[in-house]
Amino acid sequence: MLQLYFSPMACSLASRIALMEAGLDARYHLVHLWTKTIVDDDSDFRSISPKGAVLVLENGERLTESAAVLQYIADRRPETGLAPPFGDPDRYRLQEWLSFVGAEIHKAFLFPTFWYKDDGSLAKPRARITQTLAVPSAHLAGREFLVGNRFTVADAHLLWALLLLRPAGIDIAQWPSLSAYLERMQARPAVREVIATEMALRKTLG
Amino acid sequence: MLQLYFSPMACSLASRIALMEAGLDARYHLVHLWTKTIVDDDSDFRSISPKGAVLVLENGERLTESAAVLQYIADRRPETGLAPPFGDPDRYRLQEWLSFVGAEIHKAFLFPTFWYKDDGSLAKPRARITQTLAVPSAHLAGREFLVGNRFTVADAHLLWALLLLRPAGIDIAQWPSLSAYLERMQARPAVREVIATEMALRKTLG
Ligand SMILES: N[C@@H](CCC(=O)N[C@@H](CS)C(=O)NCC(=O)O)C(=O)O
Ligand SMILES: N[C@@H](CCC(=O)N[C@@H](CS)C(=O)NCC(=O)O)C(=O)O
Repeated sequence: MLQLYFSPMACSLASRIALMEAGLDARYHLVHLWTKTIVDDDSDFRSISPKGAVLVLENGERLTESAAVLQYIADRRPETGLAPPFGDPDRYRLQEWLSFVGAEIHKAFLFPTFWYKDDGSLAKPRARITQTLAVPSAHLAGREFLVGNRFTVADAHLLWALLLLRPAGIDIAQWPSLSAYLERMQARPAVREVIATEMALRKTLG
Repeated sequence: MLQLYFSPMACSLASRIALMEAGLDARYHLVHLWTKTIVDDDSDFRSISPKGAVLVLENGERLTESAAVLQYIADRRPETGLAPPFGDPDRYRLQEWLSFVGAEIHKAFLFPTFWYKDDGSLAKPRARITQTLAVPSAHLAGREFLVGNRFTVADAHLLWALLLLRPAGIDIAQWPSLSAYLERMQARPAVREVIATEMALRKTLG
């Protein structure tokens, strides 16, 4: 059985949504990121992943990095269309968005926005927010999904990143096409269920 | 014909190496990143890419993001083995490394290391360097390449990022397996040629 090591509302949320949308059963292992322990049995998470970061997907071998894991999950159930098939030019569009969300949104500005408290240090990541979010904002004006005409794992990745804007102190209302998109995505039953589950779990972690 | 918009020694270097290793002809358009102009004809680079960032690969459509472009290039010449074929589990390993280099190395610490001058702000990205580079360092102790037993586009991506350590003020000698790897990679004719070309071009940009 697939096993996902996750932390509530962390980037592993996208893969949990993908698993639900794909109809794939999995065992979910809650990781406490501060203490680097697996909550089930208090064991050392670093023995599962030396990176010390979620997510990790285990299926015999262990795979990390959202862009890889999301494609892996989608390819287990090609009939769901969660990723365009290999050979379809849209597959590269999917990879382009996965990279953009993982590198440009998550790491280049969300991440340093959580690092700093002072305006001096924050000026750099803040300066990137508008130019970065203009890209999906323009793309989604008049389109329902990021790639093709259906929900893909790229949407799972982006919607997770957009959920982080609020805790990062950024008001999504500045980008009407993004806030409408996030509302549409949150209306999907799998998305709603995963967010409810992880929000509840998060409270138990303190 | 393929067209690559690049800037000397920027992340587009990896794709230029991939094109050379694949034996693919391309037209190379030099982009001045400060002025956002295409040097050929002084035209506006933002009309090619609203992101204002290299790289962009054009082949009818335009594709951005190294992780996507590198796979696209590799798939044009499957016989070169620059990417494991779709369906091979190693394809996900390739995607895992492309994401790690693009998100964790490039954006999570190299990038902010170039942003700041003061030790206070630099403490955060600096604190990530050791834990991040420990990952490829451990992986490459006793292995020649990142994925499988041959050079792939993941190596092109990582070798580029390692070249940036010196300008970022980080001494690669701390990780003997990485410095040996970088030397091996730089001994490849395509790699050597691309670096020589771009170093020379860089001087012309001032
Ligand atoms: N590039 C990785 C990002 C992984 C990542 O940043 N994970 C965060 C949670 S969103 C984490 O576990 N951080 C814990 C830590 O670094 O201590 C991916 O795409 O999966
Ligand atoms: N995630 C992008 C990174 C693109 C990027 O950071 N490009 C840099 C050069 S390495 C750039 O053009 N920066 C110019 C700018 O942001 O003004 C990729 O993987 O291609």
